[in-house]
Amino acid sequence: MRILISLVSSSTTTGLHLLSFSRRLHTKIPPFSTLIHHKPSPAMAASEDSLRRAKLDKSVMEKQLQAAVNGNGPDGSVNKEAFRQAVVNTLERKLFYIPSFKIYRGVAGLYDYGPPGCAVKSNVLSFWRQHFVLEENMLEVDCPCVTPEVVLKASGHVDKFTDLMVKDEKTGTCYRADHLLKDFCNEKIQKDLSISAEKAAELKHVLAILDDLSAEELGAKIKEYGITAPDTKNPLSDPYPFNLMFQTSIGPSGLSPGYMRPETAQGIFVNFKDLYYYNGKKLPFAAAQIGQAFRNEISPRQGLLRVREFTLAEIEHFVDPEYKSHPKYSEVADLEFLMFPRELQISAQSAKKIQLDEAVSKGIVNNETLGYFIGRVYLFLTRLGIDKDRLRFRQHLANEMAHYAADCWDAEIESSYGWIECVGIADRSAYDLHAHSEKSGVPLVAHEKFSEPREVEKLVIAPVKKELGLAFKGNQKKVFEALEAMNEKEALDMKASLETKGEVEFYICTLGENVTIKKNMVSISKEKKKEHQRTFTPSVIEPSFGIGRIIYCLYEHSFYMRPSKAGDEQLNVFRFPPLVAPIKCTVFPLVQNQQYEDVAKIISKSLTAAGISHKIDITGTSIGKRYARTDELGVPFAITVDSISSVTIRERDSKDQIRVDVEEAAPVVKSVTDGHKTWADLWANFPHHSSVSVED
Amino acid sequence: MRILISLVSSSTTTGLHLLSFSRRLHTKIPPFSTLIHHKPSPAMAASEDSLRRAKLDKSVMEKQLQAAVNGNGPDGSVNKEAFRQAVVNTLERKLFYIPSFKIYRGVAGLYDYGPPGCAVKSNVLSFWRQHFVLEENMLEVDCPCVTPEVVLKASGHVDKFTDLMVKDEKTGTCYRADHLLKDFCNEKIQKDLSISAEKAAELKHVLAILDDLSAEELGAKIKEYGITAPDTKNPLSDPYPFNLMFQTSIGPSGLSPGYMRPETAQGIFVNFKDLYYYNGKKLPFAAAQIGQAFRNEISPRQGLLRVREFTLAEIEHFVDPEYKSHPKYSEVADLEFLMFPRELQISAQSAKKIQLDEAVSKGIVNNETLGYFIGRVYLFLTRLGIDKDRLRFRQHLANEMAHYAADCWDAEIESSYGWIECVGIADRSAYDLHAHSEKSGVPLVAHEKFSEPREVEKLVIAPVKKELGLAFKGNQKKVFEALEAMNEKEALDMKASLETKGEVEFYICTLGENVTIKKNMVSISKEKKKEHQRTFTPSVIEPSFGIGRIIYCLYEHSFYMRPSKAGDEQLNVFRFPPLVAPIKCTVFPLVQNQQYEDVAKIISKSLTAAGISHKIDITGTSIGKRYARTDELGVPFAITVDSISSVTIRERDSKDQIRVDVEEAAPVVKSVTDGHKTWADLWANFPHHSSVSVED
Repeated sequence: MRILISLVSSSTTTGLHLLSFSRRLHTKIPPFSTLIHHKPSPAMAASEDSLRRAKLDKSVMEKQLQAAVNGNGPDGSVNKEAFRQAVVNTLERKLFYIPSFKIYRGVAGLYDYGPPGCAVKSNVLSFWRQHFVLEENMLEVDCPCVTPEVVLKASGHVDKFTDLMVKDEKTGTCYRADHLLKDFCNEKIQKDLSISAEKAAELKHVLAILDDLSAEELGAKIKEYGITAPDTKNPLSDPYPFNLMFQTSIGPSGLSPGYMRPETAQGIFVNFKDLYYYNGKKLPFAAAQIGQAFRNEISPRQGLLRVREFTLAEIEHFVDPEYKSHPKYSEVADLEFLMFPRELQISAQSAKKIQLDEAVSKGIVNNETLGYFIGRVYLFLTRLGIDKDRLRFRQHLANEMAHYAADCWDAEIESSYGWIECVGIADRSAYDLHAHSEKSGVPLVAHEKFSEPREVEKLVIAPVKKELGLAFKGNQKKVFEALEAMNEKEALDMKASLETKGEVEFYICTLGENVTIKKNMVSISKEKKKEHQRTFTPSVIEPSFGIGRIIYCLYEHSFYMRPSKAGDEQLNVFRFPPLVAPIKCTVFPLVQNQQYEDVAKIISKSLTAAGISHKIDITGTSIGKRYARTDELGVPFAITVDSISSVTIRERDSKDQIRVDVEEAAPVVKSVTDGHKTWADLWANFPHHSSVSVED
Repeated sequence: MRILISLVSSSTTTGLHLLSFSRRLHTKIPPFSTLIHHKPSPAMAASEDSLRRAKLDKSVMEKQLQAAVNGNGPDGSVNKEAFRQAVVNTLERKLFYIPSFKIYRGVAGLYDYGPPGCAVKSNVLSFWRQHFVLEENMLEVDCPCVTPEVVLKASGHVDKFTDLMVKDEKTGTCYRADHLLKDFCNEKIQKDLSISAEKAAELKHVLAILDDLSAEELGAKIKEYGITAPDTKNPLSDPYPFNLMFQTSIGPSGLSPGYMRPETAQGIFVNFKDLYYYNGKKLPFAAAQIGQAFRNEISPRQGLLRVREFTLAEIEHFVDPEYKSHPKYSEVADLEFLMFPRELQISAQSAKKIQLDEAVSKGIVNNETLGYFIGRVYLFLTRLGIDKDRLRFRQHLANEMAHYAADCWDAEIESSYGWIECVGIADRSAYDLHAHSEKSGVPLVAHEKFSEPREVEKLVIAPVKKELGLAFKGNQKKVFEALEAMNEKEALDMKASLETKGEVEFYICTLGENVTIKKNMVSISKEKKKEHQRTFTPSVIEPSFGIGRIIYCLYEHSFYMRPSKAGDEQLNVFRFPPLVAPIKCTVFPLVQNQQYEDVAKIISKSLTAAGISHKIDITGTSIGKRYARTDELGVPFAITVDSISSVTIRERDSKDQIRVDVEEAAPVVKSVTDGHKTWADLWANFPHHSSVSVED
């Protein structure tokens, strides 16, 4: 059985809402909710509880982790941390990443990519471009990080992109209110053996609904439980919203507020019109952007997973809301992988393998285009080296989605921190384009030209100004607007009532009262018109990739330890596929010797010419040590010069070696690093070399 | 004769100081100057004048521009602008770039790269990585943009990264003080025919020294000339410094000021220690970083050249100051290109072709490593498609360099705006590492281990505390420190004086007075010691690339117009090399026809598999129009499907076509886009196809 995490608390446990904007807004702003579930139904509460218990159980995953690290402690969670520590130590020692500004004691939530990390990132991004932008002919754009307030006002970030914060009333230190409550509940449940079953159930319930608590509710809970500042035990302020955007000022006047963008998507939306024209006014098309995004977290946690600056890769696929099929859907329809639809979550089951086409045809996944992207994301992640058994697509619950979203799935990857949202794939309907159309006054719409004019029946609501004026005087405008705003059903109901009864009660929300509408005040009819085209706001399907999170999970999935030959040491290895490996190949003269060094340099030159990143090491260190050093960097191949005519090529994980001529070395390595050949192909075609003796 | 621009005013004309930090600090902070030249020597003044006149002359360059655009006006400068307008119109229409947040009326100095621009940028950066990082085995890092204050305090940016600003006293509108003065002088010189020769000379002199004026001097000139706010004619405030960094706040407390980095270099310097260890504690090595940088310009001008957010690619090559040779220097030594050394500038000559090795061996270029990078930058820029006759390397004048810099050269590219600094290549000595060592307390040093211990003579200065105490009482500490701080020459001079005269006058700058030092107060000796290693702060040689500027200049150098076949239209073409071209290839069925479309789709699939970005156009538009559309995007090759067995490949600039089999199309295009073959190779090996008739 796989680890399950309670539905709602998973988002706080794993920091889920970092990526998906819709959820973030949702969790913060009650008006966006479509479900209020502070008081969950009994069924929900039961499932929460069973999920929670399942989470606390020791899982298969943890057993795997135990096996991966030295020393199996009795408590699974310790081993998870030991495993993480082993990975993180290797990553830091090898400069995959470096806490930023370390010599100045660093800044929480800011990290540098050191040389191998930077190469991994660059490889992941190149593959992303190949897999998405090039394959799909997407329109890639590159917009600035500095963004004027008006744009983020329209998108809702200025008003609603907040976390609730409390302050230590004496020292002013700030904390995330939900973190404190969460820590308190977890601490009690796990360590306080004296609490009653009833109390424990209550605390678990609080954890489950944590993300949905309002400022007032959070504040009340903090007071009720007597939670104080962790470091000083001082009393805490009431929770209040803190905007997570880094604010700045554009230009010298101080009068133009700006922000560092919290996501790259808005840069695409505001360019919709130009991109639509560039694409020959055809739908669907996708635009894409890779770039930095910024979120001024109150108190960053979880190392590389929740940071204040990170690289996002986002796609906005614009589609006619009436035709959400996808021409290349059949290419992914047969894929089968772990999916975790809404209903499995609610009924406390676990994710299960489902064929994509089954999910789409049964309507579990809302439409073909959304399904197509889910399939493409699956291929992208697994080709990078993400373990397919620790990757699942989890559907958002109704209460997690913004009201406008049609459907939303997160690619979650299991790591030592739990299941981490790494890619959000949302059908955001027409929300974003609408918002910017409204704020900017520039219509962001598409047209469908009909091959021949179509006759359409259109509802025409014509309020009669004069009669409304006589009847409602100063309120006539509000009544007029309310009549015009009726949807088809409301209008036809009114028409029927007016025809039968001559008048009807009508609620005007802007007045907050009912008025009486009479037959002479409005004419409602259906008219036939010839139309040459349709004008509509496209829907957008948005796959959004947290590149840093994907890379961190990839590190965990790629890491393993194996004993040294002498058995006295555990050696670290990253099993990166060549596509991802920061360096594709090393070149080692077996012993220090001018002739071997010359051969090594010739090979190095050909590798450079072929564009293969490599490292040459002519130090006198033992070959075994040199292999071990580069295994720790995940270098897949090592060329060892042990003669002047031929050399060996060693594969990292099997440690198998083949022998090739000097001139062949670079082309052979190229064939296997650019994916034209596999190691198995080479193994079948070149003489094998056995020299296990040299590895120590 | 090429255009010459006056020595100093060139930096304002072309916005030179955007990139090179050393100059920027220098021009702003008189204490850093090594030359005060508000009152230039007569020779300098004469050369300024002749350079200025040369600049106003009509140049060969302008004639070329005239030829390039339609209609030759009598005034060269108009044509320059017409040429620029033609380029910029094409760039905007084809979405190479888009003013950011256009639907909200944009923000000055912020631009998006649209699809073709984004592809060009990505190609330029890939080539940069191949040409520099991979070829030189550089350590690439990736640091955050958000930077805490302490780092930029150490680097000097917090205190000194400023421009002088004036405000309209009534409306508060801000202007760059030097811009207003410059505009005033230019206007007078160019349009006011009534001014005397004397007055004209004065104004030219002001332009020449503009960058060196202090706030007070600028303010005085503005008052003297009666300059008012351009829009309102209101009086202006006195000039005052405005810091050009975007400021923000890190974390929720509001107590940790931060800035958006103004350059990427500091992220490398603070990591020096880790990178040095990563490199096996060996020098030289280079670190590199590509990333966004931010400068909150007071009033951005010059379109894409002076912007508020831009991509920098920076290299910090760390080297032992005693060994500045470079192992690969011989690979570039024979290159010959336009250089503009200091002495040519001062003597009012123009840049001339010099062989790199001549410049290095004569000491014109300070050292081999600096020379090596100049050569590599030349290769990089010309391979991108920069015209070698409009590229020069200009040495900084002594007064342009910071006091610590050993030498500095700018790669300047000629554009319609004049000569633009696009790459700065500076030997910054140990300045940056020193500054961060001092501020952080972490020694950023390197060691050279001697193969056997060396006997070194060391100067030992031992002030005698007791005697100093008796003689100087409360001032003893300052005298003690001043004695210890003497350099070798000063100490040996003092030793000699003390031995002959028994006492000596000694100036203590911290006291501001002379004191008398007697023989018994200090012992100065040279002692022999055995040393096992040297500890030193490495010098850094910094090539810093303004990617956006390079790309803009590349657009201008690549743009040309040619008549349509009917002769009724001028068609725009970008002659990008395949390396740079945003799309490598198009696929066109000659006529709308299912069979041809199928062939086109098969070819498109093979191109995608080969990683070649391309565009397929199956509209019924005439083939000539389709060619013209993609010529405007700089697409170098077009595959036209005119049969089901073979197709033609057209080269953009010659419009020549060859015929190849359908299966060969993708591999042939790949061979010529990845640089393994040239068009001439293909032309020699495939049957020619003549179908000029289809181009219109």
